[in-house]
This record gives sequence, C-alpha cells and structure tokens, in this order.
Amino acid sequence: MQRKSVTIVGVGLIGASLGLALRRRDAQLEVVGVGRRASRLREAEAIGAVTRWTTDLAAGVPEADLVIVSSPVGLVAEHAVESLRAAPPDAVVTDAGSVKRTIVADVRRAAGPLARRFVGGHPIAGGERNGPGAARPDLFTDRLVVLTPGATTEARAIERVESLWRSVGAATTRMSAAAHDKILAATSHMPHVVAAALAAATRADDLPFTGSGWADTTRIAAGDAELWTEILTRNGEHALKALDKFAKVLANFRSALEQNDAPRLTRLLEAGKTHRDALGS
Amino acid sequence: MQRKSVTIVGVGLIGASLGLALRRRDAQLEVVGVGRRASRLREAEAIGAVTRWTTDLAAGVPEADLVIVSSPVGLVAEHAVESLRAAPPDAVVTDAGSVKRTIVADVRRAAGPLARRFVGGHPIAGGERNGPGAARPDLFTDRLVVLTPGATTEARAIERVESLWRSVGAATTRMSAAAHDKILAATSHMPHVVAAALAAATRADDLPFTGSGWADTTRIAAGDAELWTEILTRNGEHALKALDKFAKVLANFRSALEQNDAPRLTRLLEAGKTHRDALGS
Repeated sequence: MQRKSVTIVGVGLIGASLGLALRRRDAQLEVVGVGRRASRLREAEAIGAVTRWTTDLAAGVPEADLVIVSSPVGLVAEHAVESLRAAPPDAVVTDAGSVKRTIVADVRRAAGPLARRFVGGHPIAGGERNGPGAARPDLFTDRLVVLTPGATTEARAIERVESLWRSVGAATTRMSAAAHDKILAATSHMPHVVAAALAAATRADDLPFTGSGWADTTRIAAGDAELWTEILTRNGEHALKALDKFAKVLANFRSALEQNDAPRLTRLLEAGKTHRDALGS
Repeated sequence: MQRKSVTIVGVGLIGASLGLALRRRDAQLEVVGVGRRASRLREAEAIGAVTRWTTDLAAGVPEADLVIVSSPVGLVAEHAVESLRAAPPDAVVTDAGSVKRTIVADVRRAAGPLARRFVGGHPIAGGERNGPGAARPDLFTDRLVVLTPGATTEARAIERVESLWRSVGAATTRMSAAAHDKILAATSHMPHVVAAALAAATRADDLPFTGSGWADTTRIAAGDAELWTEILTRNGEHALKALDKFAKVLANFRSALEQNDAPRLTRLLEAGKTHRDALGS
C-alpha cells in the first residue's frame, strides 16, 4: 500500500514553516505544495518545505490523507471545499486562517456533508514578514493552535489535526469559531489596527527620532495591507468592540495626563505593565 | 598633570552602557560611578562600566572634566546643578534625560552662570529593561543623540559632548529643548501610552491567545511605571497633542471598519506600512 502524503495549500510563512517542521521530524514524508505562483512553490521546494508541487489544487490532493490550507484568509474556504472534493474520501482537511467563523460557515454551506472532515484551525504564530523565504521549522514550537470543530465534525478528524500540530511542537485547544474570533479580535486584530494607526500617525520627518520602542510597537504595521484588510473585514464586529475597549482605556490615560495626575498615571501604567510582565519577553 | 576622568551619575541602562562603551574604546580611562545604591554601583564596577564609585555626588566629580547625568528624569536637574558646583571650573556637564525643556530650564534657574557649561542631551536608545545588568557597550552604535544647548551654552562644551557621543558610535544633532520635546512626544512618549493602554485593555484570560504581534506591540509597556510617569508629566502638553493626533487616525480606522469599507481600510493600513517600512526592521 502506498504511503500517504500531506498536502499544503499555500506555501507562505505558515505553510512553508509547517512543511519544514514536518520534514525535519520525518525526512521521508512526502509533502505536496499547492499554490498559485510557481516561483513561490519552487522556492518552497528549494528550502525543503515541500517535496513536489503543482499549481492545480485538484492534482495536488488525490494522494493526501491530510490537507492543510494556509492560503490567504479570503481564499481559505474555497480551497478547503475544493480539497474536500478532490482528496480521498477519508482525507482530513484543516486550515490556518486567522478568522474562523466565516470560514467554517462558508465550508459547511458549500461542502455539505463533506464538511464533517474539515476542522477549522488557527496556529497563533507568524510574523510581519511573509512568503516561504521567511519560513522557520521552529515557528510552531511552544505556540498554541486553536481548533474550532463544529457539532458534526468527525472526532477522528479533530484528533488527526491535533496530532499534526503537536508533532511540530505546538499545543492545541478547542473552542467554538465564535469564541475564537472574539478572543483574537482582542489579542491580534485590534492590536494590528493600533500599531498601524500609530505608524500612520507619526510624521515621516520624525522617523529619524524614533527608537527601539517605536520600532517594536509598530512592527506588525509592516504586515501585508490587503491580507489584513481581509482578516479585519471578516471579523469587523468583534474588532470594533475590542477597539472601543482600547479607546476607553486610552481615554483614561488621556485624562490622567490632562489633569497631570501622577499617581493615577502610575496606576494605569502599572496595569499595563502587569499584563505585559505576565507574558514574559 | 593628572589625567582627567569622566564621571557618570546614575548607573542604570544608559549610564552603565556609556561606561562600557567608553572603556571599550579606552581601557585606561578612569570612569567614576555615582549613584544612590551601593549594590548597583558594585554591579556596574563588576561588569567594567566604572573603575571606581561613590554614593556621594560631591566626592565623585572633583577630578572630572566631563560629567554625564543619567539619573531618573525627576532627579536630573538637581544632579546636574550639584555636578556643576562640585566639578572643576572648566568641567562640562551633560545629561541623558528623555525630556529636555523642564530640565534645561531648572538647571538654568538653579545654577545661574554655571549653566553655560551644561548641555542638555538625549541619546535615543534604551529598552524596557533597566539597571546595569541590561547594559551593552554597543547600545549607542548608530543611534542618534539630540543635544539641546541654549543661547548662552559655551561652544566648547557643546563640542565636548558631541565628541563624547560620537566616540561611542552615535550621531548627534542640535535643536531647541522645546523642539526636542515636541518630536519625542510623538515618537516615544505617545507610543509608550499607546502600548501601555493596549496591554491594559487586554483581558488577563486572553493572554494565552496572544502571539508575537501583541508581544512586540506591548513590549515597552514593561517599562518602569514611575519613571514613565516622570517623563510623561514633564511633557504633558505635547504628549496630549500627540495622543489626540493618534486618536484621530484611529477613529479613521474605526469608521472604515464600521462601514466595512475594505478599500479605505487597505489605504489606511498602507499608510501605516509605508512609515513602518521606511524605518526598516
């Protein structure tokens, strides 16, 4: 019997890093890369993230027992549905999109009963650099992957995806797609807007007078604008709520500053420091 | 004739890093450390940032031809004035405080004609970690130091301080204390408030679901709360204006998100990305 293979649809930072991590663990593993651009697929093959590749999704999944869709968020549902249709009837399909509610709903609507083999997923890992050139085999080490199975998702599919992520050093947790989107709005989507607004609010003439603080605080603003537009518009309601909560806290700082209330300012700064220190560096 | 020495008042991150940098360049240089706590001074001596130390400022400067005051912002003016009085009559005194208008004015008021030998300065370098343990000899390499001499500052004093910072790899620029405070409000003080508010606005329960983006964006929120209160309250007016400009840009993002206006959201994200990319990593 032929050894089954893994197919990674989308060989950007996440897809290529996963390929590297899987092949570091099992050098014999066949990893098929699927993408739109041959140049990126060739790059992924050159660094050892995939063993072969195709730009035709339907041709890339028929031998796969597991398909990971790490395409840009706006294409994930479509690619997941295509994968469910073209892969073997017992293949499991998962994704790595940063929003989950719309993706899970779109897959369920379009794939019908096939969606039972689809497990929504989101590895909380990444960076502002994109593409296979930024890939690292340890990208998922000690990171958390959120899985968002639904009521009809097959148990063995969930377990298969959990074992995939654990095999590359990540921890996994399960929650509803709605809970995921609410939490990530606060921990990822809102912070991205804040960083982008901060970078945009700084005059270009003042950039020479920035230090490592500004550089750290705005780092994610270098992320791809269209990709982040897709994420934010697919989680607009929760992102708005998180943004309003941030604005309320910021208004407290503003008022302490306006009243030159040093003890209150210290207390507010301490509240931020406590949360930041709890995370570690 | 006895070789003259440099005295560093305050051996935190900035002071100890400067000591390390000066002594890496000239291993024979005598660097006297002055501070309030013997334990930190001993630590600074152990890592080679100072060659001897005292907790008595008046005893630490009589042989110095150059005194650098890198105490917490709230103590800088007082320590600079003490140094001007106790150092030799031709000694030059400078500081490393993050705000300049109040420090320069306080020194001028208290020291009178002695203030002609005082040059306000601010090396735009640092980090959220503090103390001599965080010191690095290359902290100032390729960084910018802003000097804020006044109309009566001696030209040779300015040149002496410029040559100090250039000798440790930094570039220097001159501007008024008011111009410095306005620019740094936008590039450092406002970003600190934003990072602290972001960290404070995140629920503790959600921290496990943060990734490298949140970690970068909030890193400076780990800074010392009392030290930052001193900085912010000494530059409140400019910090408020910078905060209001940020809030206006953030409101634009909010409205694009509320209207689900993807093209506008992309344009706003692009504006942030353009500024961030101009800086490099």
